[in-house]
Amino acid sequence: MACSVEIVCVGNELLIGKTLNTNAQWLAEQITRIGGKVTRVTEVGDDVQEIASAVIEALKRKADFVITSGGLGPTFDDKTLQGISRATGRKLKLNQEALRLVRDRYKEMSVPKRLRLTKPRVKMAILPEGSSPIRNPVGTAPGVLVEFGNAKLISLPGVPKELKAIFEKSVAEKIREKSGNLAFYESSMIVRGIVESALAPLIDRVMLGNPRVYVKSHPKGGEGRTGALIELHFSSTEKNRGKAREQVIKAIIDMVRMLGKRR
Amino acid sequence: MACSVEIVCVGNELLIGKTLNTNAQWLAEQITRIGGKVTRVTEVGDDVQEIASAVIEALKRKADFVITSGGLGPTFDDKTLQGISRATGRKLKLNQEALRLVRDRYKEMSVPKRLRLTKPRVKMAILPEGSSPIRNPVGTAPGVLVEFGNAKLISLPGVPKELKAIFEKSVAEKIREKSGNLAFYESSMIVRGIVESALAPLIDRVMLGNPRVYVKSHPKGGEGRTGALIELHFSSTEKNRGKAREQVIKAIIDMVRMLGKRR
Repeated sequence: MACSVEIVCVGNELLIGKTLNTNAQWLAEQITRIGGKVTRVTEVGDDVQEIASAVIEALKRKADFVITSGGLGPTFDDKTLQGISRATGRKLKLNQEALRLVRDRYKEMSVPKRLRLTKPRVKMAILPEGSSPIRNPVGTAPGVLVEFGNAKLISLPGVPKELKAIFEKSVAEKIREKSGNLAFYESSMIVRGIVESALAPLIDRVMLGNPRVYVKSHPKGGEGRTGALIELHFSSTEKNRGKAREQVIKAIIDMVRMLGKRR
Repeated sequence: MACSVEIVCVGNELLIGKTLNTNAQWLAEQITRIGGKVTRVTEVGDDVQEIASAVIEALKRKADFVITSGGLGPTFDDKTLQGISRATGRKLKLNQEALRLVRDRYKEMSVPKRLRLTKPRVKMAILPEGSSPIRNPVGTAPGVLVEFGNAKLISLPGVPKELKAIFEKSVAEKIREKSGNLAFYESSMIVRGIVESALAPLIDRVMLGNPRVYVKSHPKGGEGRTGALIELHFSSTEKNRGKAREQVIKAIIDMVRMLGKRR
């Protein structure tokens, strides 16, 4: 089994370079670790049509999960659910369960009852029809799950602490289940005194002998410096972690032997 | 005039969450500063078809520039130019000018003549037909420019130092020209003691009164904490920096006045 995931990050702050997209990296790392395969990451601005088209494209590519980050809050520029509504044709509607979640949060925050459900706060409970809100244990905007055909569309807030809490508590398990508990293993070695272009044929041979392992070189400081470092990264996804680890270690030993012969 | 730019970042290391995509942020920040508008960022893996489809989609959306990062090096998994070849229908061919750039680099590195042009090194000079190589002042893989219809496809290496050097030396000027020297100005203020949902109507009013300014709230620490901070970010793109600055400052003053009345 396999589980493909696309990540769609929403926010003008990403497109003007104000914010470094740590959410995408964190999600990709978590998803990979639990056996999911991230096939694409897209960053779009706070624009309903842009969000909708990114989601539609991900659905067309048959992603099992489309996870969005950002755009769920109370302000006018929080437009992710409008985008998902447009992409799926599911109308936006007040969701009673989400409203209860929002109300309870402001209650916990000791906001006086008559002030709890202002218009911007009610906005966070207006979801595409047929959505399930996902409790946000550390913030006010609930996450949202929309089942669409065979795909699950999951919207998470952009605040990293909230995104992480909802993912760990309510999303990871769904991906783990879909991936059939595949396991990912990775390891790196650092090579010095050889340029990347000279490593290239060795990598080819190691991968030929270890077809389940992906080997990638990452120059640290650029080809051409004498004494420059190259990180060689080995990774494998297998039915269990022991198997993945075994494959990676064999590939590293093959590489070490080849490098040894070269000297 | 305006100049739309899409960024396509290539590399499995992004999709497994091994690498934080600082290239996309850096490029987006630079492009915004010189008056360009980044409309989308896409991350794809080291896969020819994935690269090609991301580039084709960007071209369909009529981006003036499509800038790729990564996948230009000497190893088997450096596939960006194969992807661009497939996207544009321009065959890959040895480019003599690029070959000269590559040869000169290894000469500067004092690699003996007979070893200079190994197969993996020649690979870095095999470009889509009609490309112009762009000199890489700090590494071995040249950047590549392909003109396609009204669009410019520019491929930069993934090593941040090399990407930055080529962008600053050879790409920024092209974007500046196309944008007609538009200027971007941004400024932030920090607000404390008010939750985002209470700020929302004030932001609406400030934007209504300042239609050329984009105002976005960034909660620092999440809605709901008393004493939590919110960053309010104001930005504007105008014909010149003075004009953009003036608009941003007026919007900030409007916001400060509204906040003052509220207390």
